[in-house]
Amino acid sequence: MSDWLTSLQTDTPQQGFELAIQLARKGVAYTQPSAEIRNQLRDAYANNADSLTQSSQVIATHYQTVAAANDYWK
Amino acid sequence: MSDWLTSLQTDTPQQGFELAIQLARKGVAYTQPSAEIRNQLRDAYANNADSLTQSSQVIATHYQTVAAANDYWK
Amino acid sequence: MSDWLTSLQTDTPQQGFELAIQLARKGVAYTQPSAEIRNQLRDAYANNADSLTQSSQVIATHYQTVAAANDYWK
Amino acid sequence: MSDWLTSLQTDTPQQGFELAIQLARKGVAYTQPSAEIRNQLRDAYANNADSLTQSSQVIATHYQTVAAANDYWK
Amino acid sequence: MSDWLTSLQTDTPQQGFELAIQLARKGVAYTQPSAEIRNQLRDAYANNADSLTQSSQVIATHYQTVAAANDYWK
Amino acid sequence: MSDWLTSLQTDTPQQGFELAIQLARKGVAYTQPSAEIRNQLRDAYANNADSLTQSSQVIATHYQTVAAANDYWK
Repeated sequence: MSDWLTSLQTDTPQQGFELAIQLARKGVAYTQPSAEIRNQLRDAYANNADSLTQSSQVIATHYQTVAAANDYWK
Repeated sequence: MSDWLTSLQTDTPQQGFELAIQLARKGVAYTQPSAEIRNQLRDAYANNADSLTQSSQVIATHYQTVAAANDYWK
Repeated sequence: MSDWLTSLQTDTPQQGFELAIQLARKGVAYTQPSAEIRNQLRDAYANNADSLTQSSQVIATHYQTVAAANDYWK
Repeated sequence: MSDWLTSLQTDTPQQGFELAIQLARKGVAYTQPSAEIRNQLRDAYANNADSLTQSSQVIATHYQTVAAANDYWK
Repeated sequence: MSDWLTSLQTDTPQQGFELAIQLARKGVAYTQPSAEIRNQLRDAYANNADSLTQSSQVIATHYQTVAAANDYWK
Repeated sequence: MSDWLTSLQTDTPQQGFELAIQLARKGVAYTQPSAEIRNQLRDAYANNADSLTQSSQVIATHYQTVAAANDYWK
């Protein structure tokens, strides 16, 4: 893939959260490279509560990493 | 999204827990932006034990981050 | 909610474990505030091995936080 | 419950692993206090690969805590 | 297995992410050594949203390790 | 059980990964002590993508512990 991640540092906790979301999605994209198929799948899981919770779990895990990388924006 | 997260610091462990809940919900909201659909889904998973446990797992993961950010309110 | 969590510090590792259980249950209670419904759900998942394992997973995650907050009661 | 956990320190990494197993089981026992029911459930999940993997996941999570508490027995 | 992992250090956060993906896949390959069977399985889970999310979760967990090993590329 | 784990220190990151695999399997073996039954179960889950992913998740969790124990082999 082309360059998409050059730093884990962000200016704010919210930007860090959005980076965590990007990392979660990239974890999917490396396994399923087709954006078309990913969009089809999203229609299904975006309307399934358990699927959404699992997605939120992946984001939470990446947010631990990003927050630590930024020393929790203290 | 508009600004919704400016700091991971909270005054008390309980406020930190409530922030963890907010983070868990935001992880869902970025994937399913429709509040109407999220409310419909909540009716179902709020009455399903396993779905509630999974939600509690996401909160637990975020609480690790928030607690570390606050040096555990020591 | 009223105040229910004022500190993550406990006197013993066992009290810390019991606090982790409380945190796991609170994560459920914020999503399903009805104690009556939660009690109904408990009858089901308390007799399902996989549900119990998932509950134990949430407790384990919170226990990491509580143990770190107490410097592992060294 | 009576006292069952007075320290996270163990002499060896293996004893720490066995403590992690005990913690995983205690997480179940607090939710399902009946040893008779737990034994019945064990017959089922001990013969189900995915259930065993989930149990192993809980142990792994507790082992992180126990290992950190012992500074990894360095 | 032959040598496939000599260091957790990488030059960039993105290379670290790609190492996390490799670690996630190796975790599968040690259990299912047949590349042919793994390729067959990939066709199925690469088109299943929940399977992709779970894969992304494993990557997220390994990325915590790799990022810490690189002091978050600060 | 007889002694099977005397140290979390390994010479290389790859040996650490293989130790993480051993820990994941031991977590199963303590619950299902019969090697014969475990081998039967492996035939099933080694051909199921989601089961393999879950196994990889347990390995990832243990690898965090082993890597930290070795200061990431820096």
